[in-house]
Amino acid sequence: MLPDDRRPIGVFDSGVGGLTVLRALMERLPHEATVYLGDTARVPYGTKSAEVVTRYSLANARFLLARDVKLLVIACNTASAVGLEALAQQLPIPVLGVIEPGAKVAAARTRTGRVGVIGTPGTVRSGAYARALKRARADLVVTSRACPLFVPLAEEGWTTGEVPRLVARQYLSELATTGVDTLVLGCTHYPLLQGVIAEVMGDGVTLVDSAAAVAEAAEAVLQERGLLAAKAATPPAHAYFVTDTPDRFLEVAGRFLGRPVEQAEQVDIRPV
Amino acid sequence: MLPDDRRPIGVFDSGVGGLTVLRALMERLPHEATVYLGDTARVPYGTKSAEVVTRYSLANARFLLARDVKLLVIACNTASAVGLEALAQQLPIPVLGVIEPGAKVAAARTRTGRVGVIGTPGTVRSGAYARALKRARADLVVTSRACPLFVPLAEEGWTTGEVPRLVARQYLSELATTGVDTLVLGCTHYPLLQGVIAEVMGDGVTLVDSAAAVAEAAEAVLQERGLLAAKAATPPAHAYFVTDTPDRFLEVAGRFLGRPVEQAEQVDIRPV
Repeated sequence: MLPDDRRPIGVFDSGVGGLTVLRALMERLPHEATVYLGDTARVPYGTKSAEVVTRYSLANARFLLARDVKLLVIACNTASAVGLEALAQQLPIPVLGVIEPGAKVAAARTRTGRVGVIGTPGTVRSGAYARALKRARADLVVTSRACPLFVPLAEEGWTTGEVPRLVARQYLSELATTGVDTLVLGCTHYPLLQGVIAEVMGDGVTLVDSAAAVAEAAEAVLQERGLLAAKAATPPAHAYFVTDTPDRFLEVAGRFLGRPVEQAEQVDIRPV
Repeated sequence: MLPDDRRPIGVFDSGVGGLTVLRALMERLPHEATVYLGDTARVPYGTKSAEVVTRYSLANARFLLARDVKLLVIACNTASAVGLEALAQQLPIPVLGVIEPGAKVAAARTRTGRVGVIGTPGTVRSGAYARALKRARADLVVTSRACPLFVPLAEEGWTTGEVPRLVARQYLSELATTGVDTLVLGCTHYPLLQGVIAEVMGDGVTLVDSAAAVAEAAEAVLQERGLLAAKAATPPAHAYFVTDTPDRFLEVAGRFLGRPVEQAEQVDIRPV
């Protein structure tokens, strides 16, 4: 008999960015129910310290665990970079971050062996991508660059036109001359800006978005452990929770998920 | 005998922006000790709901009260817009926000009676400036505009050049054609961008920064209540606290305060 575990996959992010990962999960695993938590009362994580981000991440994980999730996906690069180990150690379910899967794809794609990584200050400072890339292929040369303004630009919806193009040029012109042929979009917001990023980096550079890689890794974990859901008569449920009032989340969620989110429930999470 | 109350003035903000207000306080009241709290673990407030910002503000106020402050200055426009009333009701000391003083200055300056207000989404949504301006002068015509990218630009240090100029043009071009002759910088980060803001608004428009107005109001309150500190043999102490690790705060604080901050202590504030 095929496995049929109807428990949802839990996904959290500091806000809306993780919806790009949720979208990939829904596309690859259409029979799986999901519970998404956006920690909008404390967003963003990318400019905060490892200590604070880990504390917030543990609180998010506990909330999702209480909703009986079978797998936890940390759909936030900063939280994956600094909090994955603590979460994996403390939780009784499998935990996936976005960094390892993205790094593996990048390591497999590069021909020159020169890989660029862009992300929030927190992600870049952690060095997590550089480590993961070198675990995947020891001879890689990794160049990282923090791009703090990309998140507010994506949230503001300024993803095309002169302003994002200029900002991208300011952040990436130097990186574009280092010979990288593969660039990891190390923040879940960045896929929204891939047009201007690709333009500055040039034709020869492949952009790697972790979302699809994470969805593939999630499928593999569920399969290995016999945790997949079978196709059911009714489509699976997708629940959304936020820690601030839902209005702003609902307003921008569609841009990240690729379909509108009708409802999100505000929950009161107090990191200890 | 002149009053000599050595208790400090308490000042809080979501992060570094309030240091522009602290700077004005120090200039106007050089004998006063101060305690500054930047809630960097939860920054920014400007994109969060009134409910959440009020909760955070109460926790900040309680922390400062415990340090025996004689006056509380809310050096954050968003927190002043949505939380002042709750704080003034619950605290046993006088509480000053940045909105009322700034609005009074703008109302006194305008000749055309048309006043513009720019701020975070939270401040603009609250309508607090429009109300304060009309309380000061009922016939004013107020036009407000949220400028969400100004805060990340100021924090990133991109305050001159093509990117901030373009962003300012995008936000303000329309406002510049409405006949306003006075523009309130309704966010403590915005004074750092006043060069490009003035350029887009044009010569005929006066920019009003609340910081100096708040310092004047603080002096008046202390004077009225006999709470001023007398000049002492040693200069007054200035203490800095933050809720995230201090490194990033110390890095950018000088840009806002106009002098370096040597030390800031991390404190663990948990809003209830």
